[in-house]
Amino acid sequence: MTKWVHRFGQGKADGAAAMKDLLGGKGANLAEMANLGLPVPPGFTITTQVCTYFYAHGKTYPKELEAQVDAALAHIGELAGHSFGDATWPLLVSVRSGARASMPGMMDTVLNLGLNDATVGALARRAGNERFAYDSYRRFIEMYSTVALGLEHHTFEDALERFKESKGYALDTELKADDWRVIVGKYKAIVEQGAGRPFPQDPRQQLWGAIGAVFSSWMNHRAIVYRRLHDIPESWGTAVNVQAMVFGNMDETSATGVAFTRNPSSGARELFGEFLANAQGEDVVAGIRTPQAITEAARRADSQKPSMETSMPAIFEEFRGFAELLERHYRDMQDMEFTVERGKLWMLQTRTGKRTARAALKIAVDMANEGCITREEAIIRVDPASLEQLLHPTIDPSAAPAILASGLPASPGAAAGEIVFDPDEAEKLASDGRKLILVRVETSPEDVGGMHAAEGILTTRGGMTSHAAVVARGMGKPCVTGVAAIRVDYDDQSFSVAGRRFAKGDTITIDGSAGQVIAGVVKMQRPELIGEFAVLMEWADTTRRMRVRANAETPADARAARRFGAQGIGLARTEHMFFEGERIVAVREMILADDEAGRRAALSKLMPMQRADFKELFEIMGGLPVTIRLLDPPLHEFLPHSDAEIASVARAMGADPAKLRRRARGLAEFNPMLGFRGVRLAVAYPEIVDMQARAIFEAAIEAGLATGQPAAIEIMAPLVFSRAELDLVKARIVATAAAVENETGVAPSYQIGTMIELPRAALRAGEIAQTAEFLSFGTNDLTQTTLGVSRDDAGTFLGAYTEKGILPADPFVTIDQEGVGELVSLAVERARAARPQIKLGVCGEHGGDPASIAFFEKVGLDYVSCSPFRVPIARLAAAQAALGKTAESTA
Amino acid sequence: MTKWVHRFGQGKADGAAAMKDLLGGKGANLAEMANLGLPVPPGFTITTQVCTYFYAHGKTYPKELEAQVDAALAHIGELAGHSFGDATWPLLVSVRSGARASMPGMMDTVLNLGLNDATVGALARRAGNERFAYDSYRRFIEMYSTVALGLEHHTFEDALERFKESKGYALDTELKADDWRVIVGKYKAIVEQGAGRPFPQDPRQQLWGAIGAVFSSWMNHRAIVYRRLHDIPESWGTAVNVQAMVFGNMDETSATGVAFTRNPSSGARELFGEFLANAQGEDVVAGIRTPQAITEAARRADSQKPSMETSMPAIFEEFRGFAELLERHYRDMQDMEFTVERGKLWMLQTRTGKRTARAALKIAVDMANEGCITREEAIIRVDPASLEQLLHPTIDPSAAPAILASGLPASPGAAAGEIVFDPDEAEKLASDGRKLILVRVETSPEDVGGMHAAEGILTTRGGMTSHAAVVARGMGKPCVTGVAAIRVDYDDQSFSVAGRRFAKGDTITIDGSAGQVIAGVVKMQRPELIGEFAVLMEWADTTRRMRVRANAETPADARAARRFGAQGIGLARTEHMFFEGERIVAVREMILADDEAGRRAALSKLMPMQRADFKELFEIMGGLPVTIRLLDPPLHEFLPHSDAEIASVARAMGADPAKLRRRARGLAEFNPMLGFRGVRLAVAYPEIVDMQARAIFEAAIEAGLATGQPAAIEIMAPLVFSRAELDLVKARIVATAAAVENETGVAPSYQIGTMIELPRAALRAGEIAQTAEFLSFGTNDLTQTTLGVSRDDAGTFLGAYTEKGILPADPFVTIDQEGVGELVSLAVERARAARPQIKLGVCGEHGGDPASIAFFEKVGLDYVSCSPFRVPIARLAAAQAALGKTAESTA
Repeated sequence: MTKWVHRFGQGKADGAAAMKDLLGGKGANLAEMANLGLPVPPGFTITTQVCTYFYAHGKTYPKELEAQVDAALAHIGELAGHSFGDATWPLLVSVRSGARASMPGMMDTVLNLGLNDATVGALARRAGNERFAYDSYRRFIEMYSTVALGLEHHTFEDALERFKESKGYALDTELKADDWRVIVGKYKAIVEQGAGRPFPQDPRQQLWGAIGAVFSSWMNHRAIVYRRLHDIPESWGTAVNVQAMVFGNMDETSATGVAFTRNPSSGARELFGEFLANAQGEDVVAGIRTPQAITEAARRADSQKPSMETSMPAIFEEFRGFAELLERHYRDMQDMEFTVERGKLWMLQTRTGKRTARAALKIAVDMANEGCITREEAIIRVDPASLEQLLHPTIDPSAAPAILASGLPASPGAAAGEIVFDPDEAEKLASDGRKLILVRVETSPEDVGGMHAAEGILTTRGGMTSHAAVVARGMGKPCVTGVAAIRVDYDDQSFSVAGRRFAKGDTITIDGSAGQVIAGVVKMQRPELIGEFAVLMEWADTTRRMRVRANAETPADARAARRFGAQGIGLARTEHMFFEGERIVAVREMILADDEAGRRAALSKLMPMQRADFKELFEIMGGLPVTIRLLDPPLHEFLPHSDAEIASVARAMGADPAKLRRRARGLAEFNPMLGFRGVRLAVAYPEIVDMQARAIFEAAIEAGLATGQPAAIEIMAPLVFSRAELDLVKARIVATAAAVENETGVAPSYQIGTMIELPRAALRAGEIAQTAEFLSFGTNDLTQTTLGVSRDDAGTFLGAYTEKGILPADPFVTIDQEGVGELVSLAVERARAARPQIKLGVCGEHGGDPASIAFFEKVGLDYVSCSPFRVPIARLAAAQAALGKTAESTA
Repeated sequence: MTKWVHRFGQGKADGAAAMKDLLGGKGANLAEMANLGLPVPPGFTITTQVCTYFYAHGKTYPKELEAQVDAALAHIGELAGHSFGDATWPLLVSVRSGARASMPGMMDTVLNLGLNDATVGALARRAGNERFAYDSYRRFIEMYSTVALGLEHHTFEDALERFKESKGYALDTELKADDWRVIVGKYKAIVEQGAGRPFPQDPRQQLWGAIGAVFSSWMNHRAIVYRRLHDIPESWGTAVNVQAMVFGNMDETSATGVAFTRNPSSGARELFGEFLANAQGEDVVAGIRTPQAITEAARRADSQKPSMETSMPAIFEEFRGFAELLERHYRDMQDMEFTVERGKLWMLQTRTGKRTARAALKIAVDMANEGCITREEAIIRVDPASLEQLLHPTIDPSAAPAILASGLPASPGAAAGEIVFDPDEAEKLASDGRKLILVRVETSPEDVGGMHAAEGILTTRGGMTSHAAVVARGMGKPCVTGVAAIRVDYDDQSFSVAGRRFAKGDTITIDGSAGQVIAGVVKMQRPELIGEFAVLMEWADTTRRMRVRANAETPADARAARRFGAQGIGLARTEHMFFEGERIVAVREMILADDEAGRRAALSKLMPMQRADFKELFEIMGGLPVTIRLLDPPLHEFLPHSDAEIASVARAMGADPAKLRRRARGLAEFNPMLGFRGVRLAVAYPEIVDMQARAIFEAAIEAGLATGQPAAIEIMAPLVFSRAELDLVKARIVATAAAVENETGVAPSYQIGTMIELPRAALRAGEIAQTAEFLSFGTNDLTQTTLGVSRDDAGTFLGAYTEKGILPADPFVTIDQEGVGELVSLAVERARAARPQIKLGVCGEHGGDPASIAFFEKVGLDYVSCSPFRVPIARLAAAQAALGKTAESTA
């Protein structure tokens, strides 16, 4: 018989941490904690298999389930010493979701289940606290009715507000036991009216209603969106955890809290958390009351209210011990939930803690230095893509901006943008390319889309573990929470602070590292890559096999490339040097010239500019290899369009504007991607190659003399599909090198290679390698041609392709291994067979994508080249690839 | 020691027919004829190796050559009984080129070599004909001086014309011996002035001058052009043949002629040729005098002058015997040159005769029926591409046009166009797309370009073997020669006939099969494919393995496809059905609709039209398979551009024109080839698939009922690159089929397949074949993406690519085997591994190209599909491919 239900509690459990697939993360860790002997309220987990069954069988359950649940419920009763539905001492339970991957707040939860008109009195008597019992009952009615009966949350809130007004109450805490009893009555009336039947009094009926609601919430809209954003398969399903309730809100010796074994923002090795006395866990997470610090150290930095270390010292010590045990046991930073019920500590949850990229880096390096994990594990622990967050701008200290207000530094980095209040509007505006700061009193799971669309998030309520803070850290978005000084007026679409009013559309800057809000756009700076970052990079560098270069042609990019540790330039796009100022006119002259003489005249204007550009590049790279790609013009971008542009070129050429316009029109193409570009230009107009080769060689010689380091030149032909094209180009380059040597007495040292960016080039790589000394895969164009998809035009349909699962990912972000990848590996094989020592690299944007880098390691490329700011990502990803592993999700 | 010189004559030779590579075609056949015992004037061949040496060594000769030539010359003297330079009976020789492939008229020839001021007298005495001797001498001076000394031909002609005027002579025949002696003096003076030195008197100096001139002519401009047009490698070089002269112009018992063993125009089995009494061979070929028929039968059809059969009966019988011997020996129709010198027949040349496509077909079929060759050889003998000529239009008999003038039916087929006189102008006008008839008094090798550019050729002089006739037949161009009634006035750019004047630009029609000229454009008709054509096609059909289908969607094309023997439709492009009349408005409505409802509304307008189209197609094809490709729109072609177009669509949709314009602009693409087309449209808007599938199934059922033959439906998705896309489409089609079956009670029988036209599709063919029941290679798009070349834009650079030898041929005409071909064979392999019985075909334009068809046979495709008029070509090419051979050049 299938075991659909796994029990845990009192020092033992059916499950364990390794059974996440079956029990979900929460259930597996509850079982693990129970096995570790930690105080876990007894309970049981209904497996993810039941979820699968549920959806495969029209939302019905396996027939054995009911008996297994009943038995497990009875077992809880035995362990707790009182049973479900017991009229004198009723066992109450929580019913929570728990998927294999954490999906915080995305699915439904029901607490205090088992209360009814009879048991509420029993609870009051047993707890000696009537107010607590009726408050718990009204919470249960509200939660159960919205989750299981589909009623609107606000109906209950409105009723409560009206009642408070009628009594002149401002805060919930002012309500007494009798008030809550009245509210319970009102709530029950709301249910009867809204659901068409009375609120269910049978605890077993309540339980099955809640279980069904939780399973159903796997397919609610926000869960579906979250799964798509986080690549979580629908087929995994969720488990349901039913667990004895413990109450942090029973009295002042009760409390509830969440904590991390290390600081999830900075990564510092310090117990980090928040708690609320006399409260239920939802109060902390929802951010409705600003919680207190757990440790005294944290309190001092912060505020007035006592820390848990001070107010509950024994409990605190016990909890600190559990935290250390859990971190040692799981060998990673833990995120824990706990409740203290009348002086007894209960552990409700532990899981690997989400953290910022900065914290992930520090924790990995620290734990390796502590001997807790190996350096290889440290390398694997950090998601390379997350490093991009560390390359986020920070406020330039020299800017010394006037601080408008302060809050909590909930997610590091600085961001500036227009104020927007509505998350849906944020999504719309962002799709128009607007930079936004989402400003909310607090955020909820419905707001995730708008948070994703914004540059940064500001909330006026909530702490470091509030929804806004947790989600922003996960997204790597700067976030400031709990900025109490700001008063938001949603109706007016504005907020006021320090006597000033900021409306929608006004610009502000937030500093998520310092927790500050600033008016206007503040000057920012790139971070220095030191400390743990430098250490991890060093470990990565000694671990990886592939070299990492940068795609760069401007001096600024080349300098950034060196700063980020690039081992050379893998792609300098000479056409990018052709757009500036007077150059574009000379380029247009060249394109529109009637004959070779006209082209040579235009080229002779470009030659000194190219030479100066190359010289600076070689000097900056000081002897590191520099791969220069011969002109690969997007003809349609270079052509003059406006009358003014045509007139300007005509003047420079002394030509007839009308004739030029005709020629420009004649050069327009239907499919520029597949047109007269790349090496085709060199075949038709080899004098361009002569000019560029001469500029390169002369620049290299000059740079070599200037720096004392001989330049390492690699000249690359674009868009070849045959060896013959490369042979033609090579002959011109070799002849030019000989001429330069003849003139200067210096023999430039250089290699000649080619891009592999057309399917035919990949197929003929064996032949091409007989001429080429290196090959660089241009996977952008190779993707366009292999899939027949124009990157510029893919917007109309590529979304549907990833949504419908036709493609696993955007093939322009992560290499399409099955198509483009096969051509790459086939080309590698053939090129190596023809020339075993050939140098092989990639210079498409895939060169900076971790998943693609893992593939390039597998096929044995020698290097990847990517944009300068992705070089650190590539260094780490290459190390992980060399270890044969990718970063585990830190979720 | 290398044998640079091969001798022949008097019943034996050093060489043989098989040694064409070394001796050239002419030299090898002279040797073969000598070995056969035919009367061949003795001579020798300087090998093509000498030509190679000549160009590799700065136009010098191997050192052994001179001695070998001297010895061979002495040997000729021995066989002829008199020697070179002999002052009493001088041996005169001809010096002629002779390449491996025939290049008629492209290189230089020198005749009568050995004459000088001394030997001319000896020749006169020996021949007893002073006029003949001096005429021969002046011919030699003129020929030698233009060929070896680089003087202009017209200088000599002008001098002759002036002399004739001064004497009051109209014709050359009026000149007497003394007149020619004067001319010789004038010619020598021209040479001395033009060349700066006297005309060489030393025969050995003359000989080496002529040999050098012939080798040099291998690289003259027209030879280079001819080689490029006919794919003859420059590396082959030419041989030089030195041969004792025999004279057809010695007296009235002398003659010269050319003949074919069968009629080269019709292919009829009859000796076919022309001769001129008392003339040299060049007089026949040049077409200056209209020659007489060889056979009496031919004369009767023609004219007044006696045939050779009548005037020289013994010689004729001897020649007929030689002709039969040669045809039997070579097992093919022969083209022979002969000379009768004072009653003795000499054979000067034999070679495989050029022939029209019609003749090639008839000769191949006849010779197979005669048992001379096998049916397989007959199949291989006919160049499939030449069949296109037989599909040329002919004059519709019902047109009964008024004949303007008659001439010789020199090359069959009818053509109409504007009159043009200048060949260069013809080339220019043709490049603007103008249809032209080139009208000339006679043509010469310089005119080949203009002949190629014209639709047809008309000459007022010359016979069936004149330059115009031979070249036109080779080109498959209609040609009428010898239209004596037409008088051309080049200066006025007009001609007059029967009192009417026709100027440049006026339109005429020529009928090359009947030899007629007609004013204006006459109604033409497609030929019936009967007789030998049908026989050869039947043999081809029983020989070939691959099936042949047609690409067709209109009823006219589908009918043509059946008439030409297509075994089904391999590609019906549904978007082609969308352009007409009101349809385009509905199509635009569909494209521009905001939502599915809007698209469905537009589709419901298109549905009945599609169904009617498909029904007619199925009815015409009567049970043969019909592959219908789902909509693959070139969006940019369908989009409305003009305000009127937008207004019309807006009216139909009841939509705002401004909004429509915006949406149309939003759908414009940078690279439409790689854009939102093919199956991508079906993925985004599956309702289009629903409509088309329903139209197909309902049409098939209706057609099946109407014809009694169930339609064989194949539905094909375009532009897939993954199995998932096809799965989506297939699900819609299967569902629609089920719905139609449900409604009609008839289950349509159909297959679902896909195009393979993207590199990724070829790579994933194994997976795709798990869903697809057939694959059709779309090699047009596959070529575009594999090479990264847009067919629409390739004009700017593809020419340079074939000229520089980077590509062996236009990859859109003949499949690029090394690139595209590898993807095709890889896909075939993977698809067959996944689904051994999968049906594989090609529907790109390569499906009608013989060289590509040979490749498709090799990789094992099941069928090719091409445009209806190429179906016969494909049937024959497929048969040749199955035999593993391609047609031998009939050159």
